[in-house]
Amino acid sequence: MQSDIYMQRSKTEMAKKLPAIGITIGDPAGIGPEITAKALARKDIYSICNPIVVGDAQVMSQAVKITGVKLKVNAIDQVENAIYRHGTIDIIDLKNVDINSLIRGKVSALAGKAAFESVKTVIGFALKKQIDATVTGPINKKSLSLAGFHYSGHTEIYADLTNTRDYAMMLMDGQMKIVHVSTHVSLRQACDLVKKDRILMIIKLARKALMKFGIKNPRIGVAGLNPHASDSGLFGYEEEREIIPAIRAARRSGMDVDGPVPADTLFSKAKGGQYDVVVAMYHDQGHIPLKVMGFNWNKKLNKWESVKGVNITLGLPIIRTSVDHGTAFDQAGKGTAMAQSLIYAIKCAAKLASPMR
Amino acid sequence: MQSDIYMQRSKTEMAKKLPAIGITIGDPAGIGPEITAKALARKDIYSICNPIVVGDAQVMSQAVKITGVKLKVNAIDQVENAIYRHGTIDIIDLKNVDINSLIRGKVSALAGKAAFESVKTVIGFALKKQIDATVTGPINKKSLSLAGFHYSGHTEIYADLTNTRDYAMMLMDGQMKIVHVSTHVSLRQACDLVKKDRILMIIKLARKALMKFGIKNPRIGVAGLNPHASDSGLFGYEEEREIIPAIRAARRSGMDVDGPVPADTLFSKAKGGQYDVVVAMYHDQGHIPLKVMGFNWNKKLNKWESVKGVNITLGLPIIRTSVDHGTAFDQAGKGTAMAQSLIYAIKCAAKLASPMR
Repeated sequence: MQSDIYMQRSKTEMAKKLPAIGITIGDPAGIGPEITAKALARKDIYSICNPIVVGDAQVMSQAVKITGVKLKVNAIDQVENAIYRHGTIDIIDLKNVDINSLIRGKVSALAGKAAFESVKTVIGFALKKQIDATVTGPINKKSLSLAGFHYSGHTEIYADLTNTRDYAMMLMDGQMKIVHVSTHVSLRQACDLVKKDRILMIIKLARKALMKFGIKNPRIGVAGLNPHASDSGLFGYEEEREIIPAIRAARRSGMDVDGPVPADTLFSKAKGGQYDVVVAMYHDQGHIPLKVMGFNWNKKLNKWESVKGVNITLGLPIIRTSVDHGTAFDQAGKGTAMAQSLIYAIKCAAKLASPMR
Repeated sequence: MQSDIYMQRSKTEMAKKLPAIGITIGDPAGIGPEITAKALARKDIYSICNPIVVGDAQVMSQAVKITGVKLKVNAIDQVENAIYRHGTIDIIDLKNVDINSLIRGKVSALAGKAAFESVKTVIGFALKKQIDATVTGPINKKSLSLAGFHYSGHTEIYADLTNTRDYAMMLMDGQMKIVHVSTHVSLRQACDLVKKDRILMIIKLARKALMKFGIKNPRIGVAGLNPHASDSGLFGYEEEREIIPAIRAARRSGMDVDGPVPADTLFSKAKGGQYDVVVAMYHDQGHIPLKVMGFNWNKKLNKWESVKGVNITLGLPIIRTSVDHGTAFDQAGKGTAMAQSLIYAIKCAAKLASPMR
C-alpha cells in the first residue's frame, strides 16, 4: 500500500510539472472529435503533457463511441477540475452543440459557431495562463462564415484575438520546417506580398522559432518566388528588388541566411539537412513539398493512409500548433480518420511548452 | 567459331531493330560530357537502344578520362557510320570546341555555341528520321545567350526548330508524370497564362503522351492555381473562370479529368496512384514535388547524392527527353556527377521510340 501511495504521489507531482495543453475538437461535423479521441487513447500523450479538450462533451462522447476507444469523458467547467489521467478525456464542456441537429459531414452555422467558440475559449485560457499551449482540430471556413465569423483560418482568428500583427504559419514534419511569407491569399496577391520588410519579418520569426527548438544559430534557406529564382532576372524581378535585399539585411544582423534558392531544389536540400528552416514565398510553395513527403494516399480505399505534419503559428504571445489537414467531411462519423497529425501537433506543443527543454 | 559468327549476326540484327537515340553532350563546360560517358559505360543501355552522341569528340575523350570509364571514342561524321557496340562511344564529331580554350565550370560563348550546335544537329537528324529519338544533356542559358542564341531552354529551341506551336514540358519519375501549363516565365506571367484554351491544349497533350506510354484512358488530375484551389473563389478567380471551364470541356470530349485539385494534396494523391498524369499550372508547382521526391542532397559532401527524373517535351514531331537537372558547373571536371537522370532519360526515349511497345 505504501508503495502504491508513493507511486500515486509521484505521478501527481509529475503531472503537475507537465505542460497543460488545451485541444479544441474543431468543427463538430468533421473528423476533429474522432481524431481527438484516438490521440487521447494513447498513453504516451499523458507522459509528455496534461491534455484538456475544449468543445461539446456530447459530441466528444459520440466520437469515443464511433472510434471504439476505451475512454471515459469527464465533462468539466473549469480547467482546475481536470484530472489528467490516461483513460479519461477531460473536456471543458461548452454545451454548444444540439447533438440531434448535428449532421456529420455537412457545412452548418451550428457547427461553425461551436468551432469558433472552442477556439476563442482555448485562446482565453492560454492568455490567462491557465494552460501552457493550445492545439487546434480542423475547422471549416464555410461553416464559420455561416455562423458570422469571417476568417480565412485559425491563424487569422488567433492573430485577431491575441492582437498580433506580425505572425506566420510554420509547417513542420520532423526536421523539415517551412515558414510562409503568405498563406490564404490568391497567388497573384501572394506575389504582391513578396516585399523586403515582410520577408525580413518572416526570416526573424523563423529564426526565433528555431531557437525555441533549441538551435542556436539556425541555417535559414530562403526560396525564390519565380522559377529558377528568376535566373538572374530573366523571369521576374522580385528576387532582385525584394528577396535579395531582405536576405542582405538579415545577414547584416548576423543571421545565417542562404538564398534566394530556386524553389525546386531548395526543399530537396532542406530534406537533406542543408537548412534548419526554409522561408517559402507562398502557401503552396511550402505546402506541396511537405505534404508530398508526409501524406500517403490509398487509392484502393480512396482515403489518406497517413497524414503527417504540424502547423505552428509563429509570432503569437501563446503557443499554438495544429493539424495540417482539413475536416475531411467525407470521413466524418466513420471512425476511420487517422490521428497522426494531431498526435504530432500535441507532441510539438508539449515540446514548445516544456520548461525543461 | 560457327557459334561466334551466329552470335555476331544475331546481335547485329537485334541492334538494327533497336531505336537509334541521339544524345547531345550539352554544355561542354558542364557535367554533360561526364554523365554521358558514365551512362554509356552501362551495358544495359545498349540492350535497349543504339546510342549515338552528338558533340565535340575531344571533349568526349576528356570526359572518358575524367570519369575513368573504360570506353573508346569513335569520332564519326555520319550517323550510318556508328557501330553501336558497348565499349565504344559513337560520336558525331562537330569539332566545335577548342579544347585548350575550354574552361570547365565557366559560362562562355564558346561553350554556348557548341551546345546549341549539338542540339540543332540532333534535331536535324531526328527530323530526317536518321535517328528515332533525341536526348539532351544540360545546357547553360547564359552561355547560349553569350553565343547569340536567346532561348529560355531546350524546349523553346526544339519548338522553334521544329516549328511547333503547341508544346509542353512533362516531368516524369516512375509513375509520377507532370505536364506544365507554363515553364520559364515569371510567376505573375504564369498566372496570366492560366487560360481555358491553353489548359485544354495541355490536358490533350498530357492524355496523348500517356496513351503513348500504353495507358488507354489516362486519369488526369488538374491542379488549382491558388491555395486550396481558391476555396470556391475565396482566394483568386482562375479556377472558376479558366480551369473549371477547361476541365468541363475536356470531360465533354470523354476524357477522365479530375480537378481543380488543391495543389498541396494533388501530388500526394498522384504519388499514391490516383492519377496517371497531373497537369500543373506553373513550373515550380510541378517541379517542387517531383524533385523533393527524386533528388537527394548530401549535406556532408555538399552535393546531390542522386537526381532522378526525366524531362519530356510533348507536342513535338520528334521524340525528345532530357535530364531534369542543370550543368552543375561546380562539379564539372571532377568526374563525380551522377548519371541517373541521363540514364533514365535514355531509357525513356528508347521506350517511346520502340516500335514493339
